Amino acid sequence: MGIDPALLERRLDELYVIGAEPDGGAYRPLYGPAWATAVERVERWLKDAGLRTRRDAVGNLWGRAEGTDGGKSIVTGSHIDTVRHGGRLDGALGIVAGLTAVESLLKAKGKPRRTLEVVAICEEEGSRFATNFWGSRAITGTIDSADPEIAAAMRERGLDPARIATAARDDIDTFVELHIEQGAVLESSGTPLAVVSAIVGTAQLEVTVSGQPDHAGTTPMDLRRDALAGAAAMLHAIESIAKSLGKPAVATVGKLAVEPDQINVVPGMVVFTIDLRHSDLGGRRALEERIRSLCTTISQERRLGIAIRTLQEKPPVAMHPDVRALLARAAKECGVQATEMVSGAGHDAQILAARCKVGMLFVPSIGGRSHCPEEATSPKHLELGTRVLTKSLEMLAY
Amino acid sequence: MGIDPALLERRLDELYVIGAEPDGGAYRPLYGPAWATAVERVERWLKDAGLRTRRDAVGNLWGRAEGTDGGKSIVTGSHIDTVRHGGRLDGALGIVAGLTAVESLLKAKGKPRRTLEVVAICEEEGSRFATNFWGSRAITGTIDSADPEIAAAMRERGLDPARIATAARDDIDTFVELHIEQGAVLESSGTPLAVVSAIVGTAQLEVTVSGQPDHAGTTPMDLRRDALAGAAAMLHAIESIAKSLGKPAVATVGKLAVEPDQINVVPGMVVFTIDLRHSDLGGRRALEERIRSLCTTISQERRLGIAIRTLQEKPPVAMHPDVRALLARAAKECGVQATEMVSGAGHDAQILAARCKVGMLFVPSIGGRSHCPEEATSPKHLELGTRVLTKSLEMLAY
Repeated sequence: MGIDPALLERRLDELYVIGAEPDGGAYRPLYGPAWATAVERVERWLKDAGLRTRRDAVGNLWGRAEGTDGGKSIVTGSHIDTVRHGGRLDGALGIVAGLTAVESLLKAKGKPRRTLEVVAICEEEGSRFATNFWGSRAITGTIDSADPEIAAAMRERGLDPARIATAARDDIDTFVELHIEQGAVLESSGTPLAVVSAIVGTAQLEVTVSGQPDHAGTTPMDLRRDALAGAAAMLHAIESIAKSLGKPAVATVGKLAVEPDQINVVPGMVVFTIDLRHSDLGGRRALEERIRSLCTTISQERRLGIAIRTLQEKPPVAMHPDVRALLARAAKECGVQATEMVSGAGHDAQILAARCKVGMLFVPSIGGRSHCPEEATSPKHLELGTRVLTKSLEMLAY
Repeated sequence: MGIDPALLERRLDELYVIGAEPDGGAYRPLYGPAWATAVERVERWLKDAGLRTRRDAVGNLWGRAEGTDGGKSIVTGSHIDTVRHGGRLDGALGIVAGLTAVESLLKAKGKPRRTLEVVAICEEEGSRFATNFWGSRAITGTIDSADPEIAAAMRERGLDPARIATAARDDIDTFVELHIEQGAVLESSGTPLAVVSAIVGTAQLEVTVSGQPDHAGTTPMDLRRDALAGAAAMLHAIESIAKSLGKPAVATVGKLAVEPDQINVVPGMVVFTIDLRHSDLGGRRALEERIRSLCTTISQERRLGIAIRTLQEKPPVAMHPDVRALLARAAKECGVQATEMVSGAGHDAQILAARCKVGMLFVPSIGGRSHCPEEATSPKHLELGTRVLTKSLEMLAY
């Protein structure tokens, strides 16, 4: 089942210039003008491919090819919004590859047995408002109401916030998405394609370490209660714990602030964040428990105060075993041995998993870069990913 | 030789209210209104004690009791400026105790053999301008010119910046200063008084650690170049090196900034400062060399970039051995066994040491607190310090 790689690249280029920023990358925040232009462009492509299109109450765009047998739909696609200075592929690839795949199937094999749909999900990135997974949460019927700011932006686009509940779907059988990895695992192991086994669970913590601000000259080392020296020992422990637990555990201290932050004053207070991820809820909890325990021990040894609070917690989501197996078979039929891997980033599939079978394919990110203008995947990997997606949809819908 | 402890405390109280801030502490920046009021108050006290007063070209206030033998002067005193939210004793104690001591000596023993002077040094703290040791540097003749901002402030106080060179003195034999420790060494060892052996040398470095900003979810631990994890390992090493070198080595990381400082991004860059102090130049250099070497090794092991630059460097200054011995004898005559200690903070004595013999006495700081409204010393220690200062001046001038 051939696809046209030149058409794939051209469509990605066309989408990337919509919302292009003067200093690099593209930005298509939910319900903004660039977002609206991109949705219109995709709608035109879907219609040109012979799909029947519609927008739901939150602005998700659907293109549908009715199946001869009726029943629940096979859906593919991704999100159309981007982060600031976003790259060419995050979200865009899943939409463009999905429509290219369905277009090829319709052309080569005609009407499918099962209904096939391509979706451009309106928002996933938290690109504009203090929310994310807006589109997939609407599809799963889990949005109660829009806050006033979002509601106003919806009305500007002719969408009625009172109708959000109508976007819910209970007639999706399977959702399959092609996405870039956004990390360097595939590249560093020389693997061209992965089937995602699970999307990690995340816990985000904030740790406050309190000591005593003292004169850097007059306070001997043994009389100090240095909050930053204590925090450094904790950071070291956090890294060691994540490494010793092994993949896919990761722990990141991304933010850190020092008080009073003066060159000649022993730090009296440090606040830092920890982002913990694991594909398995038990693993994530073990990671968190060990980190909490060791940080507390370090604070006691150093006569420091410590307060740890949870900012956010999301459970890991397993991809459906049937879909994983099917994606692996599709890869094999395309002549590729796909590896299995855990996604460290969040995706709409983790939300949709509550209502349908989900599965994802990853292609390598060059240098592991993402959410930046340097985000790229080699043309041969983009083509391969799209071919395997096409084969998967063929196996599911024909 | 008795002094009046109630008078000492009353004068400290009187000075402390000059420049009192609504949210605690006093602030008397160089050449400001509070500073001028404080200088006038001290001048009145000096005159009342029978001393001949004068202001030099930078505004140092001198009170003089001519000696019968002539020759070079014996000088005591301290600085009259304060940091923001400064305490009751830093600087003020040396001035008030010095004038109380000289007043008592003149009253009890009459005209001294050698000329005795009390000085209120105009500035030491860097309290207002990007300079410090302004008063003592003028006394040693090492100020070439005033920058326009300081010159303008001088003119507002009726001082002529063109005359700064006239403040230089080459007729001081010995400078003795009573000061609070500003640390917790004396309190924690239960010692009421110390003779300072040296003022530490300081080096201030800025370290820039550069790694790779990556997605906190999609980048496994082994593929990271985490600048903050590297910096934490360096901080740990810096603390260990200072501890293993032993007293009086201290190393402080007081400032630290993370880029991009986002909860879900592996830090790409960290900039932190190191403040290194030691009483011995060789010791300070050994501390710096070990820290530079270990930080560089850590950066290499972690594939991180590192750049270390020196922000400031000041050599250690030994107190004069004759003065140290005399201060110890004076303490003994007052019934106290003084300990010897290194000053971790800077003082005018380290500047004046270039032109005369210098020595310092320290009394304990409660809780080691200084440069804050909580700065305090018990009345019995204030009295003891003043009595030993009086005895020292008696031994030097009578």
